[in-house]
Amino acid sequence: MKQNPNIHYLDNAATTMVAPEVAQVVHDTLLQHWANPSSLYTPGVESGMELNRARSVVAKSLGCKSSELFFTGSGSEGNNMALLGAVRSKTFGKRIVVSGFEHASVDKPAKRLRDDGYDVVFVAPNEDGTLDVDKMLEQVNKNTILVACMLVNNETGARNDVERLAQGVKKINSRCAVHVDAVQAWMRVPIRLAGVDTMTVSGHKIHAPKGIGALYVNEKYIQSFQPPYIGGEQEREKRPGTENLAYAMGLAEAAKRLGSSMPARTAHIQALNQRLRQGLKAFPEVIINSPDNAVPEVLNFSEMVINSQTMLNHLSTRGVYISTGSACDKGAKSHTLAAMGLDSRRINTAIRVSFCADNTEEDVDAFLNGLEDGMKTLQRLK
Amino acid sequence: MKQNPNIHYLDNAATTMVAPEVAQVVHDTLLQHWANPSSLYTPGVESGMELNRARSVVAKSLGCKSSELFFTGSGSEGNNMALLGAVRSKTFGKRIVVSGFEHASVDKPAKRLRDDGYDVVFVAPNEDGTLDVDKMLEQVNKNTILVACMLVNNETGARNDVERLAQGVKKINSRCAVHVDAVQAWMRVPIRLAGVDTMTVSGHKIHAPKGIGALYVNEKYIQSFQPPYIGGEQEREKRPGTENLAYAMGLAEAAKRLGSSMPARTAHIQALNQRLRQGLKAFPEVIINSPDNAVPEVLNFSEMVINSQTMLNHLSTRGVYISTGSACDKGAKSHTLAAMGLDSRRINTAIRVSFCADNTEEDVDAFLNGLEDGMKTLQRLK
Repeated sequence: MKQNPNIHYLDNAATTMVAPEVAQVVHDTLLQHWANPSSLYTPGVESGMELNRARSVVAKSLGCKSSELFFTGSGSEGNNMALLGAVRSKTFGKRIVVSGFEHASVDKPAKRLRDDGYDVVFVAPNEDGTLDVDKMLEQVNKNTILVACMLVNNETGARNDVERLAQGVKKINSRCAVHVDAVQAWMRVPIRLAGVDTMTVSGHKIHAPKGIGALYVNEKYIQSFQPPYIGGEQEREKRPGTENLAYAMGLAEAAKRLGSSMPARTAHIQALNQRLRQGLKAFPEVIINSPDNAVPEVLNFSEMVINSQTMLNHLSTRGVYISTGSACDKGAKSHTLAAMGLDSRRINTAIRVSFCADNTEEDVDAFLNGLEDGMKTLQRLK
Repeated sequence: MKQNPNIHYLDNAATTMVAPEVAQVVHDTLLQHWANPSSLYTPGVESGMELNRARSVVAKSLGCKSSELFFTGSGSEGNNMALLGAVRSKTFGKRIVVSGFEHASVDKPAKRLRDDGYDVVFVAPNEDGTLDVDKMLEQVNKNTILVACMLVNNETGARNDVERLAQGVKKINSRCAVHVDAVQAWMRVPIRLAGVDTMTVSGHKIHAPKGIGALYVNEKYIQSFQPPYIGGEQEREKRPGTENLAYAMGLAEAAKRLGSSMPARTAHIQALNQRLRQGLKAFPEVIINSPDNAVPEVLNFSEMVINSQTMLNHLSTRGVYISTGSACDKGAKSHTLAAMGLDSRRINTAIRVSFCADNTEEDVDAFLNGLEDGMKTLQRLK
């Protein structure tokens, strides 16, 4: 890493290091803006104004209005709000269409809604890791109240064409809500909101703290949108709880920090991704799991020889940090690779490398050296 | 305030100033423990261990086991989890009994459950601001799935005998869940968990940041407890979202900081409360709204002469900060005073003064001087 040449942190899809300038903003805000943003005296009003300044920065980065942006405590919370809120808000039908490789915070609420009596259709991705938007659209009808699809898959980096999906859904049924989990996409690929009703983003994937996120709600949907959790008047009654101004300011700082550098970062990360792919060619067993359309930030492959948890531990001793799947699943079998229909050997030897702009060529080389060493010395799967 | 003699912050029930040592812990954790606590390599495991260290400190302050404590994003979130989780977990009946002066994050979910078909009984407090526990118990029967009552009321400081309530409920119906909102009580009065199934606390009332809280769930209830939001395996699948380790550590620091000083703080605050009551005797119109059993941290009274929002603005110009009711309601008519059945003049001229241990006699005197000046110069209600 640029910050520390002894650390090779290649798990930026799990979380990112907080930028020092973001941590400083959080610290200063905690001390300076102590007043409750809902309080009516001068320091409270100032806190409220700072909160809305932060909101406007984050909204701008998504291309929406401030009034369409609601701060949350995490991406998972935003996804739950969007799904469980949609079924409270849209009561004209029972069908829900979801991609088969959503994050657990979309997938599990969807499965619970199925258990609760909703007609939930899960559309599996293809074996190459891409999602067929037409297959999603085929399932949408006049009774469909919600379609949910992530923009960038967290395990493979697959880039789904949610723009076409959203507009296709609206043509079939303009009342249907379209939810996009953009947690892995924000600040990595351009965001387009046409046809999208709700969108989730999270701070800790863009060098802001863990514990802050935002939910975009399209202005036409705000009034009818019934959030699952209710209470005080914070966030215009869409999300109760005294506002976390310090983290909101940190989120805005992180968004501002990355906002203008997307092309340069993408080029740097593409070069790292190429270097990694080139290095992996030395291992004839390796099969790439990320589809061709994946973002360069994520490369998922199966080394086919060593149990991936064993490899993870081996790499960890060398200061190289990667993952075997979604961090949120704590080492459970990969949900995305299973949805792609891969065999168990491919799943059990899968490794996800995920970059940020602070990674260096040395990180890639350290990973490749560690992999080579592990392939030679670790116990092979039968 | 001890920190700054020009600021007379007397709205500590709305929020408290973050202690500098807590802000420092947050800042340091953001930079040092960057890894996701769910990740399986060494830095991730270390983050997980720090998280559980923080959990154990907070659990100890409540007198529960670490395994019974779940971090949340706010007190409001904890209350929503407890109420909406209870109706998912307890399906044997439809009755819910709630005090009539709960915080909005209990009151509004309860009202929505009533609209959804639950038999929700709201038991109003007495005109003196106390709650009759026997009146609550009279409403509990074998079909009651949930009883919710706050330990300390946020607007008047009324101290409810939830210990007797919890044990009484269990005698009538051992399967009924008892929820206690202890947001205003934690670190102010001793916490007793006998008969309590869920309890909410919040960081920003004890000099920790806004955006962190905790939900206690009794160990006998954990397995069957169905949280409303689901997703990854964080917080043992009771609360999804990558864990906010920095704020969890800040919360633990704040709890440790106040943990041993409760008697000394209470004595100091009692003296401030007495000084305020003594000073208010100079205003013959004043009627105290806080009941005799109120905690010394909160004194609510009606000055009966000036609209309280006008008085709040006047005091704000002098660096004296108080509120007219719950900050979460942004100046709306007081929910608690209305539930007590007070007339509109009492409600419209109500002022809540709320102390922390950093307040000084000078703060009380600045408030009394500002009040005297306001009573003379501001436009009187007809």
